[in-house]
Amino acid sequence: MRDGKIFARGSVDDKGQFFLHIKAVEAHLKTRGTLPVNIVFLIEGEEEIGSEHLAEFVSVHRETLKADAVVISDSTMYAEGQPSILSSLRGLAYFEINVQGPAGDLHSGIYGGAVVNPATALAQIIATFHDESGKVAIDGFYDAVRDWEPEIREQMRELPADDAAFLKEVGAPALGGEPGYTTLEKLWTRPTCEVNGLLSGYTGEGAKTVLPARAMAKVSCRLVPDQKPGDVERLFKAHVARVAPKGVTVTCEHLHGGRPWKAKLEGPIYDAARTALESAFGKAPVITGEGGSIPVVSDFEETLKAPVLLVGFGLPGENAHAPDEWMSEENFRVGMRAMAEMWDHYAAAVKQ
Amino acid sequence: MRDGKIFARGSVDDKGQFFLHIKAVEAHLKTRGTLPVNIVFLIEGEEEIGSEHLAEFVSVHRETLKADAVVISDSTMYAEGQPSILSSLRGLAYFEINVQGPAGDLHSGIYGGAVVNPATALAQIIATFHDESGKVAIDGFYDAVRDWEPEIREQMRELPADDAAFLKEVGAPALGGEPGYTTLEKLWTRPTCEVNGLLSGYTGEGAKTVLPARAMAKVSCRLVPDQKPGDVERLFKAHVARVAPKGVTVTCEHLHGGRPWKAKLEGPIYDAARTALESAFGKAPVITGEGGSIPVVSDFEETLKAPVLLVGFGLPGENAHAPDEWMSEENFRVGMRAMAEMWDHYAAAVKQ
Repeated sequence: MRDGKIFARGSVDDKGQFFLHIKAVEAHLKTRGTLPVNIVFLIEGEEEIGSEHLAEFVSVHRETLKADAVVISDSTMYAEGQPSILSSLRGLAYFEINVQGPAGDLHSGIYGGAVVNPATALAQIIATFHDESGKVAIDGFYDAVRDWEPEIREQMRELPADDAAFLKEVGAPALGGEPGYTTLEKLWTRPTCEVNGLLSGYTGEGAKTVLPARAMAKVSCRLVPDQKPGDVERLFKAHVARVAPKGVTVTCEHLHGGRPWKAKLEGPIYDAARTALESAFGKAPVITGEGGSIPVVSDFEETLKAPVLLVGFGLPGENAHAPDEWMSEENFRVGMRAMAEMWDHYAAAVKQ
Repeated sequence: MRDGKIFARGSVDDKGQFFLHIKAVEAHLKTRGTLPVNIVFLIEGEEEIGSEHLAEFVSVHRETLKADAVVISDSTMYAEGQPSILSSLRGLAYFEINVQGPAGDLHSGIYGGAVVNPATALAQIIATFHDESGKVAIDGFYDAVRDWEPEIREQMRELPADDAAFLKEVGAPALGGEPGYTTLEKLWTRPTCEVNGLLSGYTGEGAKTVLPARAMAKVSCRLVPDQKPGDVERLFKAHVARVAPKGVTVTCEHLHGGRPWKAKLEGPIYDAARTALESAFGKAPVITGEGGSIPVVSDFEETLKAPVLLVGFGLPGENAHAPDEWMSEENFRVGMRAMAEMWDHYAAAVKQ
């Protein structure tokens, strides 16, 4: 008999998804006096400040935490009544670019025309990050990018998606991005290069004729499997160095990185989750992706050498991580039933 | 007999150039009891706050101020001991560009890849302002630009210029700008397009994964004869509208404009100045230019229908408009002698 241990991650702020797992365990203990598998709860309270110590904690306590599967409920269902398994997270490579021109700010009348303007130079650098179609134009950027499996891509394309509603939600004049992909594919399965901040010269009211001494940009890439943050860091820095105009000094610092993650979507924990979710919600779960990052997912997988199941019971619009955060009572109840049932299916599979 | 009236402009902060003219007039009155021509002094104290009312004052009092020539001492000599006549000023067309993407800041992980990033869009717009050589690439921008007269250009090229010293002064890694022109020509005779400020998204310490809602740039063009600020405004706005990427809303506002100016360098006031400067300094004056703007020069010329002579006695390095501003006693004395003598030459010419 294999020993199954299941972790439920969930900060208290995560809308009751953690308590739902506690309640599912209580249900087993109350009705049968025992659990079908061993379960270790790992409770973390640091998520809102970046989970700085979680990876280290998992590494230090890897023997205690040893498990056959990890379950994390930190995500949302695709829509109300639609159980969902989160299959991917994007990684991150975050940079700060600084362009230094003259030693100090100059008068743009007295000096303009004979000195390279660092703000113009920075704009010229940023303009090389994408081609005209919207694809990232950094040499080698897509080399490690995997095509999603056709059946997953097909399933994602079948999800009820509404670009008009998405456009209304973001409030932009039109959508954009890499051609050839649906909005969900762009958000979940494709890497990006986004400017997060720009600063140079005079930014107050009205006109000031300064030729700035320096210009700064924050730029971050979202990564997808199998892009490695270290490789992207190398490619990005090489690109910036290659396109940097003469007459200015350009530096590029890597501030922060995180690996992308993609579930294998197979094995007993996935089979058990699919069966239990369909039974509890009366509907087969769909496979979703996520454009953001949960860096600890890769850490669990690599440190504990166990598959991670991301199954969430939140709903879009519940103000996650924001004031007046809430969770649907219905999802709490049905989710609890699904998780209680999942452990029966899982135990049955691993104890055969 | 024609009546000659000469104005000496000069704020008290302008390093004594104003008092030098007062003293020159005193010298005439003390030695001869009379002046060779009528002189009206126009004293302005508003320069440091933008001379907002000067043009209007000149226009309202145009009859009182009526004159055959205007003399302004508000500039510097090219080098110590080298008398100089300032022959040109650049004009200005100052813009603010705002790029609005989504209605509010978004999370760059959750939304990045499907929404057009306004900071990237702004950089792409700015990158179209110059071609690879460093020339301004706005359609029609150079159409009205006059070539300087070959003899003036030749004389400017003969001025002792030191690019290494200029580079050291500005502290940049290398010089830049439009090819085919010397540094002085770039600064004095060629138009520019400079970014004066950039602001978007997160600009603090470290990493924040924001997809900004908007991005702003301050951009100004220095203009040379015969570029008209209104024409450049129209060309610039048309260019920005043409290159604006889809998926964002781009607005371009003209904040501030000023006409370029170029002296005709001929007529009795110029002849008199050349003769007097050479006599007082023992060296013929050189013709210089100025990259910045003194908008009121065009106003004097057009309102009073009189030629303006810009003859200055400051020196580079005198901290003009800055703390510890000073003026060379030698230049005060020799400049005073030159101006006293100039009026004799001018009177002789106009009274023939």
